[in-house]
Amino acid sequence: MAKKPLRIGLIGYGFMGRAHSNAYAKVGHFFDSQHEIVLQAVCARDEVKVREFADRWGYKSIETDWRKLVARPDIDLIDIAVPNNLHAEIALAAAKAGKMILCEKPLAMNPLEAEKMVEAIEAAGVPNMVWYNYRRCPAVTLAKQLIDEGRLGRIFHYRAKFLQDWTINPELPQGGTALWRLDVAAAGSGVTGDLLAHCIDTALWLNGPIHSVTAMTETFIKERKHNESGKVQKVGIDDACAFLARFENGSLATFESTRYARGHKALYTFEINGENASIAWDLHDLHRLQYFDHRDQGVVRAWRNIHVSDGDQPYLKNWWVPGLQIGYEHSFVHQVADFLKGLDTGVPARPNFRDGLATDYVVDAVLKSAQSQHWVDVQQTV
Amino acid sequence: MAKKPLRIGLIGYGFMGRAHSNAYAKVGHFFDSQHEIVLQAVCARDEVKVREFADRWGYKSIETDWRKLVARPDIDLIDIAVPNNLHAEIALAAAKAGKMILCEKPLAMNPLEAEKMVEAIEAAGVPNMVWYNYRRCPAVTLAKQLIDEGRLGRIFHYRAKFLQDWTINPELPQGGTALWRLDVAAAGSGVTGDLLAHCIDTALWLNGPIHSVTAMTETFIKERKHNESGKVQKVGIDDACAFLARFENGSLATFESTRYARGHKALYTFEINGENASIAWDLHDLHRLQYFDHRDQGVVRAWRNIHVSDGDQPYLKNWWVPGLQIGYEHSFVHQVADFLKGLDTGVPARPNFRDGLATDYVVDAVLKSAQSQHWVDVQQTV
Amino acid sequence: MAKKPLRIGLIGYGFMGRAHSNAYAKVGHFFDSQHEIVLQAVCARDEVKVREFADRWGYKSIETDWRKLVARPDIDLIDIAVPNNLHAEIALAAAKAGKMILCEKPLAMNPLEAEKMVEAIEAAGVPNMVWYNYRRCPAVTLAKQLIDEGRLGRIFHYRAKFLQDWTINPELPQGGTALWRLDVAAAGSGVTGDLLAHCIDTALWLNGPIHSVTAMTETFIKERKHNESGKVQKVGIDDACAFLARFENGSLATFESTRYARGHKALYTFEINGENASIAWDLHDLHRLQYFDHRDQGVVRAWRNIHVSDGDQPYLKNWWVPGLQIGYEHSFVHQVADFLKGLDTGVPARPNFRDGLATDYVVDAVLKSAQSQHWVDVQQTV
Amino acid sequence: MAKKPLRIGLIGYGFMGRAHSNAYAKVGHFFDSQHEIVLQAVCARDEVKVREFADRWGYKSIETDWRKLVARPDIDLIDIAVPNNLHAEIALAAAKAGKMILCEKPLAMNPLEAEKMVEAIEAAGVPNMVWYNYRRCPAVTLAKQLIDEGRLGRIFHYRAKFLQDWTINPELPQGGTALWRLDVAAAGSGVTGDLLAHCIDTALWLNGPIHSVTAMTETFIKERKHNESGKVQKVGIDDACAFLARFENGSLATFESTRYARGHKALYTFEINGENASIAWDLHDLHRLQYFDHRDQGVVRAWRNIHVSDGDQPYLKNWWVPGLQIGYEHSFVHQVADFLKGLDTGVPARPNFRDGLATDYVVDAVLKSAQSQHWVDVQQTV
Repeated sequence: MAKKPLRIGLIGYGFMGRAHSNAYAKVGHFFDSQHEIVLQAVCARDEVKVREFADRWGYKSIETDWRKLVARPDIDLIDIAVPNNLHAEIALAAAKAGKMILCEKPLAMNPLEAEKMVEAIEAAGVPNMVWYNYRRCPAVTLAKQLIDEGRLGRIFHYRAKFLQDWTINPELPQGGTALWRLDVAAAGSGVTGDLLAHCIDTALWLNGPIHSVTAMTETFIKERKHNESGKVQKVGIDDACAFLARFENGSLATFESTRYARGHKALYTFEINGENASIAWDLHDLHRLQYFDHRDQGVVRAWRNIHVSDGDQPYLKNWWVPGLQIGYEHSFVHQVADFLKGLDTGVPARPNFRDGLATDYVVDAVLKSAQSQHWVDVQQTV
Repeated sequence: MAKKPLRIGLIGYGFMGRAHSNAYAKVGHFFDSQHEIVLQAVCARDEVKVREFADRWGYKSIETDWRKLVARPDIDLIDIAVPNNLHAEIALAAAKAGKMILCEKPLAMNPLEAEKMVEAIEAAGVPNMVWYNYRRCPAVTLAKQLIDEGRLGRIFHYRAKFLQDWTINPELPQGGTALWRLDVAAAGSGVTGDLLAHCIDTALWLNGPIHSVTAMTETFIKERKHNESGKVQKVGIDDACAFLARFENGSLATFESTRYARGHKALYTFEINGENASIAWDLHDLHRLQYFDHRDQGVVRAWRNIHVSDGDQPYLKNWWVPGLQIGYEHSFVHQVADFLKGLDTGVPARPNFRDGLATDYVVDAVLKSAQSQHWVDVQQTV
Repeated sequence: MAKKPLRIGLIGYGFMGRAHSNAYAKVGHFFDSQHEIVLQAVCARDEVKVREFADRWGYKSIETDWRKLVARPDIDLIDIAVPNNLHAEIALAAAKAGKMILCEKPLAMNPLEAEKMVEAIEAAGVPNMVWYNYRRCPAVTLAKQLIDEGRLGRIFHYRAKFLQDWTINPELPQGGTALWRLDVAAAGSGVTGDLLAHCIDTALWLNGPIHSVTAMTETFIKERKHNESGKVQKVGIDDACAFLARFENGSLATFESTRYARGHKALYTFEINGENASIAWDLHDLHRLQYFDHRDQGVVRAWRNIHVSDGDQPYLKNWWVPGLQIGYEHSFVHQVADFLKGLDTGVPARPNFRDGLATDYVVDAVLKSAQSQHWVDVQQTV
Repeated sequence: MAKKPLRIGLIGYGFMGRAHSNAYAKVGHFFDSQHEIVLQAVCARDEVKVREFADRWGYKSIETDWRKLVARPDIDLIDIAVPNNLHAEIALAAAKAGKMILCEKPLAMNPLEAEKMVEAIEAAGVPNMVWYNYRRCPAVTLAKQLIDEGRLGRIFHYRAKFLQDWTINPELPQGGTALWRLDVAAAGSGVTGDLLAHCIDTALWLNGPIHSVTAMTETFIKERKHNESGKVQKVGIDDACAFLARFENGSLATFESTRYARGHKALYTFEINGENASIAWDLHDLHRLQYFDHRDQGVVRAWRNIHVSDGDQPYLKNWWVPGLQIGYEHSFVHQVADFLKGLDTGVPARPNFRDGLATDYVVDAVLKSAQSQHWVDVQQTV
């Protein structure tokens, strides 16, 4: 049976553009679908560089103006992998053009933008997804499965952190194409929208809605040179953010993120403590899941250090043989595989834009609390 | 040269009474001092049991009324190892009687009590110490040493937690002699004064004063049977507490404690991230210290998993040979050894009552913040 | 500048056929070369299945007879990914036809075959390599780099093991296409040629030639049903093998492999102890390298748990960002990348067939020692 | 009820003399018995030092000639904590004098001596034990319990190693009181009798008799100065030893020991792989036991990292509360506690001298094999 082509139009060729392209290139080798990815076009402003990128990854054509890409009738899906401040405009146009949309996280600069994007995409009725890829590290997916099976019982605690250390050097410049994550105009916030958004998405997925938060943020280095102009400018982003939260299920949480935790490159960890069992995960050893089940017999009751590499664990039967680990990039492959499966089956994959909005509501409450120094209730999606 | 006897009068023979007695019994075998511990008397209300305890540990005499013990001229030092609500009264009497005092933590039920105790003891001019024993796990002492050497540089983050899981069962009763820690009248608070007090003491020692906090507490099980009367009563303690803090040195912190973290028995952990180096420790593997130094050469830069068992590391030359670990109880032995050294040298060991007051101020601010749901400034000791 | 095509003819589509194909598909996305991989043809006996495989991976054509593939003028390189008993015949024919050859490990069924293959390929003067992929896990490559820098000093000890547990069940059948590794006629030996060959290749690379060995082997399950015929037959392979060795540099070694180590799926570990430093690695956490340097300052001297994911570590600058791990499959990508680099630069990549022969000599000595129960000297390559 | 005194006469005040004395001092505080340890006398040649030792530990008297100690009627038990070459003579005299005997390991310099000691002690009919203390680390005792419950099924593999690094420096002298372990005349062998003897004792206990061995030994530093005379002399001990073994139950084993494994201070590890379950332990984290049970449900099947600190695990109910670890010294306390329990109940504690002889037989076979370079059958005790 011939497969149905799904013609991708990717916007942006940075770190995420590469991660998405790799996922598109690999998915068909490992996962079956009625749909077949076609790398139709990649778009970015720098023609030389985008041509080189297209050649490397096998995109059939290039564009230097995203509006043209969105207007092309030979594109089925727009993949938004550009700085946060461009998400909304592109998504609104793409939705209007009836394209499916995959959008990098966080969905938008603020809830207002995000709400408009949700409205547009739901009006258009097109498949949509946000690239919160960590849901699809097999160990994280297994955590979700164990929770859904009811193994944990009543949940008491959730804790997550995402620690990096790459901005400690005060000589590191900010802004421009390479360092837009440090530019508040392009990023909207610092670690809150960049890193905590990941933690929040996972948390909402695993533990349900967050009711309220109290937060603090800090900018440790107050001024940096601009990466392109060389001018010393005020730093507008938050370098670190921590917040306490209460979930609607009654559990208590702590969240923390920073780019000033010396020794940690990408230490995203979460732990969830239930009445009967607990689960913990760590991105630095992403192929492992820690699991404690109180119902195990006393003398051998312990944390189990699960090497998530076996065929009965999520996604693994499609890869190698037991004991052989997969890595970071595979979470993107899984996300594409699940998106295609959603198209095949008619049951859309998640997180969709509405899920992305839910995370943006939490991010917004966190930033507001940090400013007001009060507890803030989180707005809920319908 | 003959040693000077130090005649101990211990009040209380519970878990802490045993830990202190073991320390008294062992210290002279492993540490030199001009002073010699003499187990003069142990005091508790139950005569049969206190007699049995005295026989087991070699105390020369018993008392069943602490006032009599305090009045005895053959006692040099009163060791208070009873529930929190009795600390102040005993300490005030002992100070008045001119006894040295070692007091279990937290120092008091509230800052008011603690202030009186500090005033009394300083007026009496007697040596005093609070049993925050974790300072003297060798790995923790080594952390302090590395910090004091300036290895970390500017501090950005501190995080600590103390997780247990022993009160999850709703059938667990509360109160009475065995379970006074669950009785707010005896304990003053739940995990905040019991477990977070340890975290706070270490933090103040390693990272200096805390400026302000925002906290939340929760009581997951609202009613329990009383352990002696059998009557179902409201639970008055906090089962869990988390707070955000800002230290006076500008660093940000998260603290958390609970008795509802399934899988953790006594997981006291802390981590401190500095500009140049980071340190982490975990009570479940208390003989290890994690250390990351950014100044290490790039390709082999990594967290070092230090097995703190070598003769050049704190306290270790007094024990066995490299590679052989010591345990929990040794932190008490070290505390007694350092107290004796303080007597020998005239440079008193810490934490003293004033240090204990500082921790009580933080505990108080945390509890107030949890109630008011606002940030609260921490009162500072002079 | 146009790239030079390198037209691959793959023989075999099993586990290794997939791993190689994935490497061919990915290498150009992440590594630059003057050569460009072209998936020209894949060959296997089952026409339906090989067609399906070709479609999935993008091979342009298929063959069902390897002799035809070898004879095709549009093929530059023959990749041998079939059972061990077919390596020699194919390699001899391919060498004769002037093809480059990549051959799965172990190179041959015995040293006699392997010697002929080396002779043929060296006479033909064609580029050649054996798929000992573990050399190119970044952590292992880093180990080699640290050794080559002379950090370890005089070497005292080497130890390696490769533990699996997939054949414990006596109901597991043997033989046929799926289970040829359990058929001595197809595999030549059991764990010795399959798993220990990996350990030996790494050891020779890191620590130089092995002088002599004493070994024991065991077959725990003596009879199994044939996977296709269903007939109960004697098991001819070794289920487990352990040997002691002396290296020519004077160091002592232990090697062990088994498929009966419950709990281990693919636990390939090695450790090397030098006068000044030690190194350890573990395939179950392949992105980490353990490193101990005695020259570190005493109180913080410790094993460093290196997360090999940073741009200054081998191969990593071509992948993602620090902290994000890659996995098993990437070792194959690196091997292809290095092979291409060898073509670009004229400095051939290793291990070549002669290196593969060296490993086969050790395997042979081990099997002979296990049979004779004596120490056996290892034959050396010139 | 009055306790029965057990009057100890300790010979030797080195590292082991301290460890034993600490066990004697502590056991009554934590374990109940009808017997009460009395520190009657300690004996060593240096009167000043032995006096100081007696004062520190509370021994009532001293001797400088062990023959006088053995002759004293007020001594019930002789504890031999002197270099290996003195064990036999003292034990024979003590047995003749009808004393109970605790003897440091290895039991003797060779099987001939050991056989005489067994004969003497069995003729005398006195309680006896060898200080193979590691059996009584709670995690090791738990391993034994799990094996005795039949959880592992048929055993396939045993592996043990004991790695140290304290003799790498060629400037380290040998011999004399402090360094008798490096003097073959005092120690009998190097790591084989010192470290491998521990591994062998545990292995025989956990996995039954060893049938045969093939071994290699090495002396890396051939000459050292004598510690007292300063004269450069040949090194007579083995610096490293590794051997392969076959147990009588059909399982295969590897054993290794060295004092040249940079980075390891006292890394005694063992692992045992059974049909259904596996167990692993490591002296550097002696409070943990690794346990894998294949009968666990697939997706959460994993190595369990058991924190052996709970009241239902061996010896732990006598110590602190769950989560709080004990250390090296406690294995000696447990050994004394079990010895006393043996006296109380009439069921003697093990390992007794006959068990010590069994280990000596294996040590002897290992040394013979290393010399002959052949497999050697192990002599069995009756």
